[in-house]
Amino acid sequence: MNILLTNDDGIHAKGLWAVERVLSRRYNVSVVAPDKERSAVGHSITLTSPLRLTKVETNGGWGYAVNGTPADCVKLAVLEILETRPDMVVSGINPGANVGINLNYSGTVSAAKEAALMGIPAIAVSQDPPTNHEYGIAAGFVGSLISRVMTEGLPSGTFLNVNVPNCPAEEIEGVRITRQAMSRLEETFHKRRDPRDRSYYWQGIETQVFAHGSDTDGTALCQKCISITPVHCDMTDYQSMEHLKNWDIPLK
Amino acid sequence: MNILLTNDDGIHAKGLWAVERVLSRRYNVSVVAPDKERSAVGHSITLTSPLRLTKVETNGGWGYAVNGTPADCVKLAVLEILETRPDMVVSGINPGANVGINLNYSGTVSAAKEAALMGIPAIAVSQDPPTNHEYGIAAGFVGSLISRVMTEGLPSGTFLNVNVPNCPAEEIEGVRITRQAMSRLEETFHKRRDPRDRSYYWQGIETQVFAHGSDTDGTALCQKCISITPVHCDMTDYQSMEHLKNWDIPLK
Repeated sequence: MNILLTNDDGIHAKGLWAVERVLSRRYNVSVVAPDKERSAVGHSITLTSPLRLTKVETNGGWGYAVNGTPADCVKLAVLEILETRPDMVVSGINPGANVGINLNYSGTVSAAKEAALMGIPAIAVSQDPPTNHEYGIAAGFVGSLISRVMTEGLPSGTFLNVNVPNCPAEEIEGVRITRQAMSRLEETFHKRRDPRDRSYYWQGIETQVFAHGSDTDGTALCQKCISITPVHCDMTDYQSMEHLKNWDIPLK
Repeated sequence: MNILLTNDDGIHAKGLWAVERVLSRRYNVSVVAPDKERSAVGHSITLTSPLRLTKVETNGGWGYAVNGTPADCVKLAVLEILETRPDMVVSGINPGANVGINLNYSGTVSAAKEAALMGIPAIAVSQDPPTNHEYGIAAGFVGSLISRVMTEGLPSGTFLNVNVPNCPAEEIEGVRITRQAMSRLEETFHKRRDPRDRSYYWQGIETQVFAHGSDTDGTALCQKCISITPVHCDMTDYQSMEHLKNWDIPLK
């Protein structure tokens, strides 16, 4: 089985190396990942500059670094680099949760979404809190989950977003199938002035409140459960379609 | 009523100016838009560099140019720039369709999605084909649609993705409420060699085939209908949740 491995932290990230180490024992693993960190790039792709590949050593072998986004990496790998279409795409392991509204901004998640759009089963994996760089438990779980995905299958256009609590295995409370939390973020900007007395703004650290819904991704993670959210690419709000059909909208 | 206007083509784009002209006759319109074109940036936000504002003249008044993405513009406008929270966000008018799988990559759409995530009703507007720069019909339709949205309301977390055929008004066949087409793109890369004989890749022009489903956004547009797709921010595949709950996944 052929697995394409990518991330949004760059090809030298420890989270990627950890999962490569586990998966390459059982599968034919190819690594195509950004040449540097590309967090919060969402599902962006590179149209206005050319993409280049650099062959680099990883911990077990070698991979390709791409001067682009996670979605670029998946597209370029599948369409140009790999001789065989991958049977699965794994994106991660990201240090820090990818839950709730942050799925929209996450490069880790967008790589898996790109694979799902191409009809390839995919898993995005994150670990939280990002306080150390031990990824063994999360990497082991990915290996286990891949086996299930290969036997059970996933609907076309659906991928799995996985968040693993960063704690000793015996403290993990279980595996929970969750929905994406839709509660609001508490967002801020930090307004500062530069040495030339001109204003600038830093995007603040966003926190999402998971007060409600034990079935959400964020709550599961807070309660030391591994969270698995099935995510689909179809963004249509089918319920609203029926309502909208009753609107009469003139041209102007 | 206060409307925030943004886009992904930059504050000097004619599509934005056209809609500003129409809406400012009836509403209090504020413009906060990228300082340059930011197409295909998806839902990316800027974390690793500071954002700056520049006050610039538009056709009817002035607005703020931001050195960031469309989603940055919406966040910064709502949280820092505007004195009053906008009642609605309009993103566009984009020259070129935003239908089907391209919704994932579109900066135009992501600005509206950011607004919906913040609980603000939003409309993303595109016009196709992008062959001329007359936006009068699309801008007029946006004005008409806003009135309906204000009286009918939209569910929290849902926004409207609108595509208007670029043709004389009498050739428009009507308004169709559609779903996002999920058929695959035909994707290519162009591999070239630079003067130093090193390879590089350009992302090719993607085309999506809309053979099936008269109820999709792409088909409606091809048939000279205005397409309105309700899009929601919740990415959970609820159907798969039930199926996954039967999986037994060991830790390793």
